[in-house]
Amino acid sequence: MTKFRDIEIRAPRGSKLNAKSWLTEAPLRMLMNNLDPEVAENPKELVVYGGIGRAARNWECYDRIVETLKELNDDETLLVQSGKPVGVFKTHADAPRVLIANSNLVPHWATWEHFNELDAKGLAMYGQMTAGSWIYIGSQGIVQGTYETFVEAGRQHYGGDLTGRWVLTAGLGGMGGAQPLAATLAGACSLNIECQQSRIDFRLKTRYVDEQASDLDDALARIKRYTEEGKAVSIALHGNAAEILPELVRRGVRPDMVTDQTSAHDPLNGYLPAGWTWAQYRERAVSEPAAVARAARQSMAVHVQAMLDFQKQGIPTFDYGNNIRQMAKEEGVANAFDFPGFVPAYIRPLFCRGIGPFRWAALSGDAQDIYRTDAKVKELIPDDAHLHRWLDMARERISFQGLPARICWVGLGLRAKLGLAFNEMVRSGELSAPIVIGRDHLDSGSVSSPNRETEAMQDGSDAVSDWPLLNALLNTAGGATWVSLHHGGGVGMGFSQHSGMVIVCDGTDAAAARIARVLTNDPGTGVMRHADAGYQEAIDCAREQGLNLPMLGR
Amino acid sequence: MTKFRDIEIRAPRGSKLNAKSWLTEAPLRMLMNNLDPEVAENPKELVVYGGIGRAARNWECYDRIVETLKELNDDETLLVQSGKPVGVFKTHADAPRVLIANSNLVPHWATWEHFNELDAKGLAMYGQMTAGSWIYIGSQGIVQGTYETFVEAGRQHYGGDLTGRWVLTAGLGGMGGAQPLAATLAGACSLNIECQQSRIDFRLKTRYVDEQASDLDDALARIKRYTEEGKAVSIALHGNAAEILPELVRRGVRPDMVTDQTSAHDPLNGYLPAGWTWAQYRERAVSEPAAVARAARQSMAVHVQAMLDFQKQGIPTFDYGNNIRQMAKEEGVANAFDFPGFVPAYIRPLFCRGIGPFRWAALSGDAQDIYRTDAKVKELIPDDAHLHRWLDMARERISFQGLPARICWVGLGLRAKLGLAFNEMVRSGELSAPIVIGRDHLDSGSVSSPNRETEAMQDGSDAVSDWPLLNALLNTAGGATWVSLHHGGGVGMGFSQHSGMVIVCDGTDAAAARIARVLTNDPGTGVMRHADAGYQEAIDCAREQGLNLPMLGR
Ligand SMILES: NC(=O)c1ccc[n+]([C@@H]2O[C@H](COP(=O)([O-])OP(=O)(O)OC[C@H]3O[C@@H](n4cnc5c(N)ncnc54)[C@H](O)[C@@H]3O)[C@@H](O)[C@H]2O)c1
Ligand SMILES: NC(=O)c1ccc[n+]([C@@H]2O[C@H](COP(=O)([O-])OP(=O)(O)OC[C@H]3O[C@@H](n4cnc5c(N)ncnc54)[C@H](O)[C@@H]3O)[C@@H](O)[C@H]2O)c1
Repeated sequence: MTKFRDIEIRAPRGSKLNAKSWLTEAPLRMLMNNLDPEVAENPKELVVYGGIGRAARNWECYDRIVETLKELNDDETLLVQSGKPVGVFKTHADAPRVLIANSNLVPHWATWEHFNELDAKGLAMYGQMTAGSWIYIGSQGIVQGTYETFVEAGRQHYGGDLTGRWVLTAGLGGMGGAQPLAATLAGACSLNIECQQSRIDFRLKTRYVDEQASDLDDALARIKRYTEEGKAVSIALHGNAAEILPELVRRGVRPDMVTDQTSAHDPLNGYLPAGWTWAQYRERAVSEPAAVARAARQSMAVHVQAMLDFQKQGIPTFDYGNNIRQMAKEEGVANAFDFPGFVPAYIRPLFCRGIGPFRWAALSGDAQDIYRTDAKVKELIPDDAHLHRWLDMARERISFQGLPARICWVGLGLRAKLGLAFNEMVRSGELSAPIVIGRDHLDSGSVSSPNRETEAMQDGSDAVSDWPLLNALLNTAGGATWVSLHHGGGVGMGFSQHSGMVIVCDGTDAAAARIARVLTNDPGTGVMRHADAGYQEAIDCAREQGLNLPMLGR
Repeated sequence: MTKFRDIEIRAPRGSKLNAKSWLTEAPLRMLMNNLDPEVAENPKELVVYGGIGRAARNWECYDRIVETLKELNDDETLLVQSGKPVGVFKTHADAPRVLIANSNLVPHWATWEHFNELDAKGLAMYGQMTAGSWIYIGSQGIVQGTYETFVEAGRQHYGGDLTGRWVLTAGLGGMGGAQPLAATLAGACSLNIECQQSRIDFRLKTRYVDEQASDLDDALARIKRYTEEGKAVSIALHGNAAEILPELVRRGVRPDMVTDQTSAHDPLNGYLPAGWTWAQYRERAVSEPAAVARAARQSMAVHVQAMLDFQKQGIPTFDYGNNIRQMAKEEGVANAFDFPGFVPAYIRPLFCRGIGPFRWAALSGDAQDIYRTDAKVKELIPDDAHLHRWLDMARERISFQGLPARICWVGLGLRAKLGLAFNEMVRSGELSAPIVIGRDHLDSGSVSSPNRETEAMQDGSDAVSDWPLLNALLNTAGGATWVSLHHGGGVGMGFSQHSGMVIVCDGTDAAAARIARVLTNDPGTGVMRHADAGYQEAIDCAREQGLNLPMLGR
């Protein structure tokens, strides 16, 4: 059971197959791409992002997945159980080639404690969301989500103009690292606290953050200068959010927006307790895990208290989906949930139309393939200025990591349209190799996560997880190329169940039929779930798009 | 939202279709059959068995499911969410026609308290196992399981001969009612305590129990007489197990085997507290649910204490999968798990070969169709005397309930063989209409239930629920006719996740291809799961049957 290997993995490029077809080549390249040093946070330990979100359980499992995918026939399906390839079974051409289940635990045992026990025995793997389901594409994925959130917050609170405003946040990891760039794209300054210098360096290098301040005073001086000048500059600050936020409250500093993206969902691995160094934290996580998790939770309580203090001053404050409110609540901060999650605050109206982080990657490795799809999106969706602006900014400001990829938030109707168009471009040779299309698990129809995606549902069905299970079954029935079911992504063990899917556009008619089904059904389940909960936007969308929802009528 | 309707439902018989094909006619008939008064415990409230295990959420949902199945095309799939038909989506001919998810809750909220809250709002349904997945066939289903368990216990503890021995148990409900007959078939007397006279009457009428005693003294006198005579007679006794078991301990009475099948998994609906009448219990469950559940749990603690006392005297004592040990433990009986569950004690070796409660029903309604399949099973499995004996006794002693059906415990290899043979019999006209094949969720590869099916796994993976999810995904990929994913079956909210599948033999080539895949893959996942846990029998079986398990080699 090898957890560390001194190796650099990069997905094969070009149009030559290493597996028997593009349907198996695609998961092979995307697994490898998840571990590309440009993409993954800690690829030598198989960690893609989000604390300990892995692509395979250990290196022996990785090797066997790769070998198995190379041999897999187009009427066979590989089963992957928490990152381990456990079986190959006979299915058929229109069935998924890979079925994945990661980190799922029977509810009564669905805690970090039990997970860690299993993990120590080599029986578990944390799949996060797109880490264990092989469709992480680096920080770009999250940039648009964060950008859309900041833009929507700006619209709600500042009349749509964030010039001269600044965002206070923490965490510059795999996802959180998107915050400074997203704030800049949205027109705001930002102060980004991060406790690991290496993370700041990485974000400076990739141009996601503009500058690093030497200390808090310097940071505040820079914020003052740039907001006065009306420039949207992002500042990184090395330090601990659990120390700096309370200090800002004490000093009476007033940001224009407050959020957080430390890995609070995982107290043992993702959140540095106040007063500790990162090295101490990693070491003691092994020697005394219970005490470490407790210390982290205590610091989170302090951190959340400061966020509540900002909110009390009327500053828009929201949880960015890392479950920090829950942790603080368990530590005694009774009103931790006074500030909302970003989904009910800003995202749910989009979910009602099946809109969310849709993405695709060019298996060729050729950036031109993505630029051609960018142009195709503009051609097919000619009058969405916001979308066009995003595509232009993304091309200009976002470096590809690993295989070139693009993300853009579209919903029911447009997804199938784009997928079919990309498939045609592969068929005609306009693209140099097939495209894979997937999405995040932060999604309209494929996740139940009562502290995040399904927080405060209108009918109270936040915790009902039939929906993501149906989504996974339906995507399997429709013929997605791989389908996954995860537990605990984003918000940690016990707090979410969710499903992923990826589908290959190989330019064939068979692929077109599958794409039309899957890229309709997948966002369709999101519209269905929200319509069932009573959201009028979703009911309207279902009618417009001709969904057949038996209890609602057409 | 109508929970009660004064109606009697019976599945259509014969070979005339009400839906557009046998693939949709089959779920239609099996849903209706689950509510046949001969089959269901309380069909007017949609309750099939197991406390509140329902076939549909309410009568409006039932009506819409029926209408939708009648209209459904053979490239469409109906989604059912906790008994409510929520969507119809385009899939393809080899995809399931119905996908079901029942009672699934995000783990942190996966409690009876939260479930009951949702239920009160009309947002939930408890699917139990085969209730909400439309393949319950009445008590026959459980008779063989119980029979196999008693026989195996007899083999382990009494040299294979139960003559003159007696079993003490309680609960004569949908499943528990099989106990007296199973004990008789296994050669033992039995004393069966049941607190509802109506349940005893039902079992007397269907010949599952032989006699009712007037009181405890009478019961013990009868047991004494029959055991001395070496006759395997079953005795019912009206009373409360939480009172009678301690009394037997006090009197120094020594049964030869002790178990229990009250619905302890559901304290609010399935277990009568000591000293209460059933009417009081039902009434107060509505007016003061928390107090009622507490009272039930307290009585369970007393009940389990008596079972522990029997065990201390060296009497084979086992939990029969109703989670009563967990409830008692939560009430302070620290050593409640001192007596084992029936699975690790008697069933696991069978699971290692994918063996478990395989079943089929004749959609024609014609008993002859089942007798012909009985004969076919004997023909194809000529040298299994135990199996032949079971088939003969079942035919002689077990009245069909609803559509004629048969159950028999076979595993990987034989399941596909039988399925293909039945499909041939439909094709040739030897059977008068199609057959459906399914199984219980008490199964080798499709359930994680750490207090029952996956108790005490060799590698400690009891609570890992990736396995049932993969099973459901694979059965969907393979083309089962309907596939379901449930939570909480058998042992209650929080304690299990499991999956069901049913496949139609309509005599076509397409069905044969699906049957070969699904009836191989489904038990195959069970062998895989046990091989992965390190059971040598499973590893051997995988090799013999040519399963492809990448980490184990062929
Ligand atoms: N859309 C969403 O809901 C959404 C999106 C992105 C991320 N998230 C959540 O945000 C969190 C971050 O995700 P990630 O992928 O970036 O994780 P990550 O583990 O890669 O990064 C977390 C970063 O926080 C830093 N950090 C930890 N404790 C800190 C402290 N006390 N002060 C300052 N910095 C600290 C770490 O050094 C690390 O760089 C996760 O909980 C994730 O689930 C949610
Ligand atoms: N193979 C298995 O693991 C397996 C098989 C069958 C049943 N079970 C479990 O056994 C239990 C019973 O299943 P069922 O379908 O028969 O349920 P049921 O609700 O139909 O029947 C339970 C019966 O127990 C009786 N009862 C309740 N409290 C009692 C008490 N204190 N004393 C005497 N009788 C009492 C009720 O009157 C009822 O008739 C369930 O928990 C089920 O999950 C497990």
